[in-house]
Amino acid sequence: MTELLIVRRDLNFLLYEWLGMETLFERPAFADHSRGTIDAMLDLAEECAAAHFLPHYKQADQREPYLDDKGVHILPAIRDALARYAELGFFSAGFAPGLEGMGLPYLVCSAAFAMFAAANISTVAYAMLTVANARLIVAFGTSAQIDAFARPQIAGRWFGTMCLSEPQAGSSLADIRTRAQPDGADALGFRYRLTGNKMWISGGDHDGAQNIVHLVLAKIPREDHALPQGSEGISLFIVPKFLPDGRRNDVAVAGLNHKMGYRGTVNCALNFGEKDGAVGWLVGKAGDGLHQMFMMMNEARMGVGLGAAALGYRGYRHALQYARERQQGRPIGTRDGAPIAIIQHADVKRMLLAQKAYAEGALALCLYCARLCDEDDDAEAQALLGLLTPVVKTWSSEYGIAANDLAIQVHGGYGYTRDFDIEQLYRDNRLNPIHEGTTGIQAIDLLGRKILRSDGAGMAVAHERIGRTVAAAMSAPPLAVHARTLAEYWRRTRETIDALRAREGTSVFDNATYFHRAFAHVIVAWLWLDQGVIAEKACAPTGHDPAFYAGKLRACRFFFECELPHADAWLVLVGSGNDVASGAAEESF
Amino acid sequence: MTELLIVRRDLNFLLYEWLGMETLFERPAFADHSRGTIDAMLDLAEECAAAHFLPHYKQADQREPYLDDKGVHILPAIRDALARYAELGFFSAGFAPGLEGMGLPYLVCSAAFAMFAAANISTVAYAMLTVANARLIVAFGTSAQIDAFARPQIAGRWFGTMCLSEPQAGSSLADIRTRAQPDGADALGFRYRLTGNKMWISGGDHDGAQNIVHLVLAKIPREDHALPQGSEGISLFIVPKFLPDGRRNDVAVAGLNHKMGYRGTVNCALNFGEKDGAVGWLVGKAGDGLHQMFMMMNEARMGVGLGAAALGYRGYRHALQYARERQQGRPIGTRDGAPIAIIQHADVKRMLLAQKAYAEGALALCLYCARLCDEDDDAEAQALLGLLTPVVKTWSSEYGIAANDLAIQVHGGYGYTRDFDIEQLYRDNRLNPIHEGTTGIQAIDLLGRKILRSDGAGMAVAHERIGRTVAAAMSAPPLAVHARTLAEYWRRTRETIDALRAREGTSVFDNATYFHRAFAHVIVAWLWLDQGVIAEKACAPTGHDPAFYAGKLRACRFFFECELPHADAWLVLVGSGNDVASGAAEESF
Repeated sequence: MTELLIVRRDLNFLLYEWLGMETLFERPAFADHSRGTIDAMLDLAEECAAAHFLPHYKQADQREPYLDDKGVHILPAIRDALARYAELGFFSAGFAPGLEGMGLPYLVCSAAFAMFAAANISTVAYAMLTVANARLIVAFGTSAQIDAFARPQIAGRWFGTMCLSEPQAGSSLADIRTRAQPDGADALGFRYRLTGNKMWISGGDHDGAQNIVHLVLAKIPREDHALPQGSEGISLFIVPKFLPDGRRNDVAVAGLNHKMGYRGTVNCALNFGEKDGAVGWLVGKAGDGLHQMFMMMNEARMGVGLGAAALGYRGYRHALQYARERQQGRPIGTRDGAPIAIIQHADVKRMLLAQKAYAEGALALCLYCARLCDEDDDAEAQALLGLLTPVVKTWSSEYGIAANDLAIQVHGGYGYTRDFDIEQLYRDNRLNPIHEGTTGIQAIDLLGRKILRSDGAGMAVAHERIGRTVAAAMSAPPLAVHARTLAEYWRRTRETIDALRAREGTSVFDNATYFHRAFAHVIVAWLWLDQGVIAEKACAPTGHDPAFYAGKLRACRFFFECELPHADAWLVLVGSGNDVASGAAEESF
Repeated sequence: MTELLIVRRDLNFLLYEWLGMETLFERPAFADHSRGTIDAMLDLAEECAAAHFLPHYKQADQREPYLDDKGVHILPAIRDALARYAELGFFSAGFAPGLEGMGLPYLVCSAAFAMFAAANISTVAYAMLTVANARLIVAFGTSAQIDAFARPQIAGRWFGTMCLSEPQAGSSLADIRTRAQPDGADALGFRYRLTGNKMWISGGDHDGAQNIVHLVLAKIPREDHALPQGSEGISLFIVPKFLPDGRRNDVAVAGLNHKMGYRGTVNCALNFGEKDGAVGWLVGKAGDGLHQMFMMMNEARMGVGLGAAALGYRGYRHALQYARERQQGRPIGTRDGAPIAIIQHADVKRMLLAQKAYAEGALALCLYCARLCDEDDDAEAQALLGLLTPVVKTWSSEYGIAANDLAIQVHGGYGYTRDFDIEQLYRDNRLNPIHEGTTGIQAIDLLGRKILRSDGAGMAVAHERIGRTVAAAMSAPPLAVHARTLAEYWRRTRETIDALRAREGTSVFDNATYFHRAFAHVIVAWLWLDQGVIAEKACAPTGHDPAFYAGKLRACRFFFECELPHADAWLVLVGSGNDVASGAAEESF
């Protein structure tokens, strides 16, 4: 079954030939690792994904989590798969040895995650949240908090959640009303009693782990008992389902959300403090909550992007297999002879190549940024990572679904039936442009916080690296035409940013989503060209595996010829300050 | 609830202000009708859709048809809704009085259908197939066949299907293997015994009607018992589930297809002739089957387009209602004050305006073509209708889903839950680019049969009508800029066709799908501009209802500024004979 997950040959190209994994081993943090240890871990991931995650993919969709008076029940196969995941060390893989981890690069963890996500996104989502939760506690918690709440998660015995949204505060966290009343202090820090309603909590309750560690955003009331206004008033609390003494904390499931897809991941509305107030311990300083939570949110955004890429990728592999096997029709203009495999029809090739460009492009984008995470002492890498996080999250989500949409189409009527997995991949993937910040929110983050209101460091690094890729591609003749195209689009992107900077007022955000689309397309084009440079060299007459590299070059060319030109329309809209939508009167709809 | 279906004000604009319904009454066939009778029928449709179709929308999704030893069972609410539909005369509405019909224009039937489709596409699909089936029998059957098989369908007592595909012959009908063995003749015509397996039969079996009339494509063996090659060997047969003497015909359900959406419409694999051969009567002449079936296919393609438009439209209405009610966030740059309705955020406005442009645009396209159907004695209208049928089918399907996708996004996380209807609209709509000929097939039909291999009559009519719209818009100052844009895109479209004509070989079809995209976008732009001309006049300072017309003009402008520019990229690909996909080696994927 592994040919339907992430292709190992492809992963090797990305990790070793393109992203220079080996240079990571020169860093002290990763000095104990080698290609041998990494490949062994990826072998394990591949085997475990195929043996323990893939088999219950459809079942998890058909048998949703349910709530009864004992709590939420998830499919036993989900619990078993995650137990195996823990046993093999995938929860702890990215943590330092001092935390019982393996100290693997984030890049490797991400590659492994992609295989699990391709196999079963809604099962591995529990682990993704748990690891990100533990990482936040390790970063900002006290050592007592780390021991009590992070270590059991790193071991995979307890799972974690993030509790941000409330019914009246979805994307607008400044409006949260969950209240944290001081309740003394103990060995775990300042203790509070929380009351409030949280919404959209993935993994919010279930019987798949011994305990659940909620990281909860709440506000500490002022002396006049009112809650502080705005996001500066937000603090972060650790609120476990079961308290250290084993008693049940005052956290109740108010209901389950029944979703279109991603069904194996239970999603709850939680009530904190229906009785005496849920016990929670403050993480870091009061008022630092949102800032701290951004660490987890950023990791979750990367995870969403990578999951979306993996779903797109798996759909492509299914479509490819089907297109090679299904016999239908004849070459245009011929009437006789046996039907041909549909992969020979030009439009099917187009749909497959588009999927390859989208899905492999998204995986490359995600892993490129995972590599940046590992350079955590490099300010340039971190600046670029900040700039690209909304791109990773959103481009991968939007084009992962576009790939799944084409995979359905390649399958014809069969793709629309539940006998095949494609329709589920498509449904699962549809969550990704929504959770952890919608596409619209990511666009405002990119244009506002990451570009117009930043010091420009991220853009400077991008500029320098894009310039390097352009220069390298200029010296690889078949790529020179793309190099010139990229340089031109990048120039226009920067020009558009300058035009926005020069403009007054808030209307610069009117076309933020179009800006994001254009910017992201240019970034993906850059990364395709950067891979193209490697492929072009490897493709030389003496090289091995020419079809593989020819495929990469073909996908690169597809992206430049069929996709990038659309950035033109988006840049024009942004640059001209188009107000057709923003100026529409409400009553005209 | 009707504000969530097709808005009557909008329908009145399309039918009376734009499409000149009243001029239809001048035609002898429609002389008995008036705005009064038509509006009464549309009132009935609106009421019936809201009262009998909408309420079981979700239930039909949750409780799929099932098969047991008595046959296929559908939800009783579906049966009841269709009984009411029959009672009110919607099955017979479009048939001549001699057939117990009301002789209503196809345009009116389509407008009514849109309301039912918006309310519950999978319930009204049974009626759509039945009416199209009966119309084919009326057109090509003998009077005995009409009495026996069309009249009970026109009355809504029996339902109809179309049986084309087989497991090995999906889009490639020349490869069907269903065999029709001569079996004498009787009052119903030449009788045959059919054996074969048919796939994807919507309404193929169920307990919702007294009988089911299958129209089946099959081949009559030659003297050497072999089946004739190619599509010329295809004949058409009427094969009822129950024979005129009440006995069960030899047609068996081989299984049900379980779909992602559109679940209320049962979809079967049927086995014909498991025992003695299914009894069927030849329609028209042997070998005319595919030609005759095209009448039903074209009607079904129009129906698919209209259904897709209606689903997009309903999603837009839901999103609009939600965006007006949901309070979240503040204007960019402000931190204080109460949250605002999300319709005030620029990106939400963009998503709503795009939905309006897609969904209202698709409805306009479908009704424009329905109007052409009513001019069945006008060769020009029929030529244009032929040209536009693949556009109606495909553009409405692709952009209907695009609208539903945005409707989910406007709802945020709620849009992904099954508590709201949006996710179901999106799932239902995903069938539409597949059935009755996929997008890829429609693109080849448009470029091949309708343009390159046609006599050019359809293009000539389009050219003349587009020229008229351009001229009218040139004299309405705010629209002049769009008029010039449209003229330029139309010129480039024709130039691209000339370039394709001049090119040799089958590679002209390599980018047929991109050609279809560009062509369809230009057509939709034309129809938006044509509506814009009307709206611009009505919008004058002395006019009534200025917000309505301003909305139409806004959607028109959106389409020209945000959508049409993408046709540029597609035309370049087609015009340059891009071979990035078609030239990709199979082993490079």
